[in-house]
Amino acid sequence: MNSKFTYTLSELAEKIGAQIDGDGSLKINSAAPVDDASEGAITFIANAKYIKHLESTKASAIILDTDTEASNISVLRHKNPYLAFAMVIDILFPELPDVHEGVHASAVIDENVSIADDARIGPFTHICSGSSVGSETRIVSSVYVGRNVSIGNNCIIYPGVRIMDDTVIGNNVIIHSSTVLGSDGFGFAESDTGLKKIKQIGNVVIEDHVEIGSNCSVDRAALGSTKIGLGTKIDNLVQIGHNVEVGRHSIIVSQVGISGSTKIGNGVVIAGQVGVAGHLEIGDSVQVGAQSGIAKSVPPGSKIFGSPARDILLTMRIEASLSRLPDLFKRVRKLEQNK
Amino acid sequence: MNSKFTYTLSELAEKIGAQIDGDGSLKINSAAPVDDASEGAITFIANAKYIKHLESTKASAIILDTDTEASNISVLRHKNPYLAFAMVIDILFPELPDVHEGVHASAVIDENVSIADDARIGPFTHICSGSSVGSETRIVSSVYVGRNVSIGNNCIIYPGVRIMDDTVIGNNVIIHSSTVLGSDGFGFAESDTGLKKIKQIGNVVIEDHVEIGSNCSVDRAALGSTKIGLGTKIDNLVQIGHNVEVGRHSIIVSQVGISGSTKIGNGVVIAGQVGVAGHLEIGDSVQVGAQSGIAKSVPPGSKIFGSPARDILLTMRIEASLSRLPDLFKRVRKLEQNK
Amino acid sequence: MNSKFTYTLSELAEKIGAQIDGDGSLKINSAAPVDDASEGAITFIANAKYIKHLESTKASAIILDTDTEASNISVLRHKNPYLAFAMVIDILFPELPDVHEGVHASAVIDENVSIADDARIGPFTHICSGSSVGSETRIVSSVYVGRNVSIGNNCIIYPGVRIMDDTVIGNNVIIHSSTVLGSDGFGFAESDTGLKKIKQIGNVVIEDHVEIGSNCSVDRAALGSTKIGLGTKIDNLVQIGHNVEVGRHSIIVSQVGISGSTKIGNGVVIAGQVGVAGHLEIGDSVQVGAQSGIAKSVPPGSKIFGSPARDILLTMRIEASLSRLPDLFKRVRKLEQNK
Repeated sequence: MNSKFTYTLSELAEKIGAQIDGDGSLKINSAAPVDDASEGAITFIANAKYIKHLESTKASAIILDTDTEASNISVLRHKNPYLAFAMVIDILFPELPDVHEGVHASAVIDENVSIADDARIGPFTHICSGSSVGSETRIVSSVYVGRNVSIGNNCIIYPGVRIMDDTVIGNNVIIHSSTVLGSDGFGFAESDTGLKKIKQIGNVVIEDHVEIGSNCSVDRAALGSTKIGLGTKIDNLVQIGHNVEVGRHSIIVSQVGISGSTKIGNGVVIAGQVGVAGHLEIGDSVQVGAQSGIAKSVPPGSKIFGSPARDILLTMRIEASLSRLPDLFKRVRKLEQNK
Repeated sequence: MNSKFTYTLSELAEKIGAQIDGDGSLKINSAAPVDDASEGAITFIANAKYIKHLESTKASAIILDTDTEASNISVLRHKNPYLAFAMVIDILFPELPDVHEGVHASAVIDENVSIADDARIGPFTHICSGSSVGSETRIVSSVYVGRNVSIGNNCIIYPGVRIMDDTVIGNNVIIHSSTVLGSDGFGFAESDTGLKKIKQIGNVVIEDHVEIGSNCSVDRAALGSTKIGLGTKIDNLVQIGHNVEVGRHSIIVSQVGISGSTKIGNGVVIAGQVGVAGHLEIGDSVQVGAQSGIAKSVPPGSKIFGSPARDILLTMRIEASLSRLPDLFKRVRKLEQNK
Repeated sequence: MNSKFTYTLSELAEKIGAQIDGDGSLKINSAAPVDDASEGAITFIANAKYIKHLESTKASAIILDTDTEASNISVLRHKNPYLAFAMVIDILFPELPDVHEGVHASAVIDENVSIADDARIGPFTHICSGSSVGSETRIVSSVYVGRNVSIGNNCIIYPGVRIMDDTVIGNNVIIHSSTVLGSDGFGFAESDTGLKKIKQIGNVVIEDHVEIGSNCSVDRAALGSTKIGLGTKIDNLVQIGHNVEVGRHSIIVSQVGISGSTKIGNGVVIAGQVGVAGHLEIGDSVQVGAQSGIAKSVPPGSKIFGSPARDILLTMRIEASLSRLPDLFKRVRKLEQNK
């Protein structure tokens, strides 16, 4: 990707706090993967398996850790090359989503709405009464904001997001397209005439620095709040049930489903397509392998995998055994016959 | 949650048909879980495992069944406390989604559309020709209604719902945000030049009292109708394939996928992330555990679990065995050596 | 389904290149399944298991292969009856989605946008600067098109689709409602203050004749492009991670998730709810059974199934064994006791 801007390697080094090992006057105006870079590009290696590309890369400069040796290319040295590359990308590509200043003429803003002077509200946005939008927040286009919603500063709300009544969103939050915050939780009581809806009168609270992907559903609480904690990142097509509480700095990958009232700790990593039953506690720093199914609470620090989820090493031993299971039946039959 | 309204316990008892066991003059203006209630709140216990909170709850009143003993707190007695609590919430929190009366000036209503006088149509809604919207129905905001769609009375259609041509929706139906009714079924014929689309010319029929969550896809039939039966409740992010028929009063939890032409009976409960193959029959009152995969038809009344789904007790026995499977290999090896 | 048009059987035969075996003057004005057809309808049998309905169908005509015998009904003979039926449906039901000619007055078209004279742009559509829409393309309603997006000719973009900056869409592409093309990939670097977002500066490229269902998320690349190849068909609620490349004429069924940087070959078929880990290569013509979990690259032509995915025959042998596993424990215990 070519940037509209050009920096010298020295300028980049200074901005991200890296040491230069090479020619600081080199001009950098693009960023690329190590095996697909061309002149003018900066690249990086953060994983040993890419070191094989170090000799042959056509990049003008590379970000490496403090130890990896390199010849024939200028290097920015940083203890965390992946983080350093992320910072360089921010410098080369500073663009924000396209929203004109102010409130677009087509937007419908109901009475008693507070919008910061430097917030930007795109076309076809509908903001209902009692809501507020913070400073420098961008609501890109075609967003619905219900009643009594609070959106903080420096947020980006992408097109088609639906934020239902009473949702509270902190600062520096990013919500991707078509995600729904505050749809009703799934609760019904049996009655003589069928399933009677339990009206969901709670809300959703999203703390600072949270990012939520596209097409997610985060249900409002039945009573109280569904909460997503500080710095937590959620991928696309994720289901968060009513009254779920997700802690801080956790990662929830695509197509995961968390059932109602479950509490997820801090620093938890849940891989794709995992399902978690309701009313559980998943401890801090738990790691869950893809497609796992969790039906019991999980102690802090556990690494689990499988459906049903077990200790990851046990699941892997079981999986290894399974391939030999048909053969085991034969062996037992033979033992029985030889008895 | 605090209500804008206050009722005495006697008034609530009368409205929901409960007996008072305590002080009927108590003033109630909020509802809360038993372990998070404060003065003025009514709460409930419907599950024995919460009885431990009965002594310590700070609620002013509690809904209990006819047997559970309680001292120090005023009680509403009802044979179904969860249902009674749902009714109390409806009384304390009667608010409906915010839509101004009439048709919003920004809405685009094509020719030959019939909208009941007391229906409410929010901003940025587009209704195509030949469609109708029934009495007291609320289309909240930014909804698309295609051609020849019929929407009944007392429905709530949340923001961002897309209702494609020819869909028929009954009365008292709720559709949550960003759900799509009537996208094309997934059908292709192989041809010399690649996959040829089978044009999907059927429709979707949603019967009365159905509720469908957010971000669901209900595909139109190839020919004929995809049907969701009376009183059935569908959670978020659910896929309903073309020509599927779901019976009455069934429950389909989040992220379930039902493949084309499968018939689901009445009173069926399908837990989260289940997949059902196409052209199957799932009998009445079947219960399916989370993450199950169903590749064969299922007789009425079955309780199944697992992928592939088996009788739930068999699956649980297998799962219990699996943890000991690596050890079984060792035991068989030992038997072979001792032979 | 009744068409607005009527054709004689001879006319249909000529248009689709079929032979008539019966009365060419028959009038056909509807299409229906073989067991639900009535007079005036044409139907088809492409699967031997439906031949039982051949005698009793009430259709006026039927499409059969060149061998299947039939009496009492007029037949169109075609080597591929399913494809022939698809062509007949196109003839009887030529309607396209309802969009008025030109650009709707409510649409917001930013500066420097190129829209073909015969393209149709529906209400509440927002197209940002630098984008183009090709000839005869229909953008139905409430669509967002970001900056520098290219949409080819003869495309149909259904309501609520969100096409983010820099996306490239070929010709004859269909995107169903509420699908998001170009939301950010899920990439973060660990830092002292939490997870630091890796800004996603790549794009999405959709080749000709691709169809993508409703509520899908196709993430933009971190660097470079996420690509969906010629003629590939994707069902609803599918997740395509950043930098994924899907080949030509592949089929991806509902609720599948493909993790970042994985390459899917040509002619691949991935059944519903499958998960594929990142950085893998899935070879040409691979077939993957429903709910499979793929954690390793797969050679071309493989047929795999299960989570973790194995050769389908091995998985089926394992599954057959599992039902007898609890019994196997008993047998081994007995052997141990008899030793």
